[in-house]
Amino acid sequence: MNPPNSPDRTTLRDPLADSPFLRACRREPTPVTPIWLMRQAGRYMPEYREVRARVPFLELCKRPELATEVTVTAAERLGVDAAILFADILLILEPLGFQLEFSRGEGPVIHNPVRAAADVDRVRPLENTEPLDYVFQAVRAIRAALRSDLPLIGFAGAPFTLACYAIEGGSSRHYEKAKTFMYADPSAWDALMGRLVDATAAYLNAQAAAGAQALQLFDSWVGNLSPADYRRFVLPHMARLFSRLDPSVPTIHFGTDTGSLLELQREAGGSVIGLDWRVELDQAWRRLGDGVAVQGNLDPVVLFSSPDEIAAQARRILREAAGRPGHIFNLGHGILPGTPVDNVLALVDVVHSST
Amino acid sequence: MNPPNSPDRTTLRDPLADSPFLRACRREPTPVTPIWLMRQAGRYMPEYREVRARVPFLELCKRPELATEVTVTAAERLGVDAAILFADILLILEPLGFQLEFSRGEGPVIHNPVRAAADVDRVRPLENTEPLDYVFQAVRAIRAALRSDLPLIGFAGAPFTLACYAIEGGSSRHYEKAKTFMYADPSAWDALMGRLVDATAAYLNAQAAAGAQALQLFDSWVGNLSPADYRRFVLPHMARLFSRLDPSVPTIHFGTDTGSLLELQREAGGSVIGLDWRVELDQAWRRLGDGVAVQGNLDPVVLFSSPDEIAAQARRILREAAGRPGHIFNLGHGILPGTPVDNVLALVDVVHSST
Repeated sequence: MNPPNSPDRTTLRDPLADSPFLRACRREPTPVTPIWLMRQAGRYMPEYREVRARVPFLELCKRPELATEVTVTAAERLGVDAAILFADILLILEPLGFQLEFSRGEGPVIHNPVRAAADVDRVRPLENTEPLDYVFQAVRAIRAALRSDLPLIGFAGAPFTLACYAIEGGSSRHYEKAKTFMYADPSAWDALMGRLVDATAAYLNAQAAAGAQALQLFDSWVGNLSPADYRRFVLPHMARLFSRLDPSVPTIHFGTDTGSLLELQREAGGSVIGLDWRVELDQAWRRLGDGVAVQGNLDPVVLFSSPDEIAAQARRILREAAGRPGHIFNLGHGILPGTPVDNVLALVDVVHSST
Repeated sequence: MNPPNSPDRTTLRDPLADSPFLRACRREPTPVTPIWLMRQAGRYMPEYREVRARVPFLELCKRPELATEVTVTAAERLGVDAAILFADILLILEPLGFQLEFSRGEGPVIHNPVRAAADVDRVRPLENTEPLDYVFQAVRAIRAALRSDLPLIGFAGAPFTLACYAIEGGSSRHYEKAKTFMYADPSAWDALMGRLVDATAAYLNAQAAAGAQALQLFDSWVGNLSPADYRRFVLPHMARLFSRLDPSVPTIHFGTDTGSLLELQREAGGSVIGLDWRVELDQAWRRLGDGVAVQGNLDPVVLFSSPDEIAAQARRILREAAGRPGHIFNLGHGILPGTPVDNVLALVDVVHSST
């Protein structure tokens, strides 16, 4: 019992730490299941397209006032339980010495990819995070602009996915070059991954220092590896990366196509494991065990269907989570361009109105 | 004991039925693990490219003497344990009323895709398989040309993958149109799948009648579905299809990205379940149970590496199979263009020399 005249317990609470999203990261009960959506500030949203009509993608990432605008607008418009920094996973490659371009229609291109073991030597260590200061400025501005109880998620690409971009020079379907590099020279691969781990740890810790309440690692492409290759070429690096992050900040470990990698991802680290829609949430969580939260896992294409179908599929996922503390609702991957905004709002509503 | 003057037991055996590949389909012991490779007659092979330099892809499929040449050449050159008919999974769509084109560089295009429920009505039933007679002619010619102990595999696309092509009008990354169609009108979807099942059953049974010893269903895209959607939109149709196939002919049920769907695929049917490289063969087989054979599951990109790496990865897979009868070695998906032929030969050699 509180002594008389002491402030009420409620007013002592940190509204951020007590937010549903951060409580779920810590596997504490929440009144409703928190929800946010990968790429919630994205091309599907008219407000975003309006900003993008004025500036190229890379400029949008590099102008903190614009990154702040699209981040905050999306979180407020959708009424979700967390905002996520507007940025791109490849930004970190520039200060490491890669020439990065976002060409219209073609996606990202890296003009000087790593192709031989010797190329790894020219991948510069991130001596300090100053070249990425525009990101931390955006984090500070977003934090200042957001409601005081709305957490902000910072993020980075995971080293495997970054290494694939760095070696392939852009998107890829089969990752022949990256895997062949990995098989041909495991020590050059380890050296490259080591540099990416060092840089990513510094980058993420600086985002947390600037005001992000949680950090997500996007290993979007790792699901293309066999479990044996993940164990050999990725797991040690991911484990080192997680060990280097500020332990007071919850981390989300996300990948797609990772149905067979979940136990290994769990072993690598993360307070929350991201699930794509290819797994059943209950089975996946059982395999991961009680000591971790989960995020996911609606098929993004379901958002192209009707509010009824969206509600049915969202409720199925909530049933699979069975009210266990530690479920953050999300899609299994980013919102697709062309998704009707009203359907996104309907999803947020159904998740928030289910208890 | 055989009575005197009776033929030796060996000579009474059917050399085809007694082949390692067909024995493995029946989960009977084999002296060595049989191997064949998806797309073994394909662009990576100079002999194939030479034929293709003379004729467009669709013409190659439709000229039995050329389809025979590339099928038999690949099987003989590689020394594998089965040949697979050279054809394309989309050929069946033509007699159903779809205008199919293989445009250079762009892959297959369907000029009159299904976009609305009403479009399903114009998908013609396959009254008889006569329009696909060129395929059965190829089967007969290949069977006649092959070594008498070398099985020939016929194949078809599975209804979900065909339906995706029919609705998307070509390849797709996220299958928005197909899934949206499926969610929006489950009865139109079921009608479309029903027609595809009927046609595919007739097509595959005719391939077996023409001389194919086994039949593979390629559900290459099904791994993009959540398990709940597979159960609702695919499983009943696949089960009906398998129930319609000649029960004396072994069937291989193949998909990619199916790590979370294996039990459901097993429920649908197939003597052999195809595994891609994203699963560990031993764990996958344990989940599938003893009553089924498995095929797979080397990452096709490993064939771009060195003979040592190929041998190490092939031996890992053979160790996972642990000599249990019923393992057919294969890649987890088709051989990629650009794969060095010598590496494919090295793989066949390492599998055949491991006991």
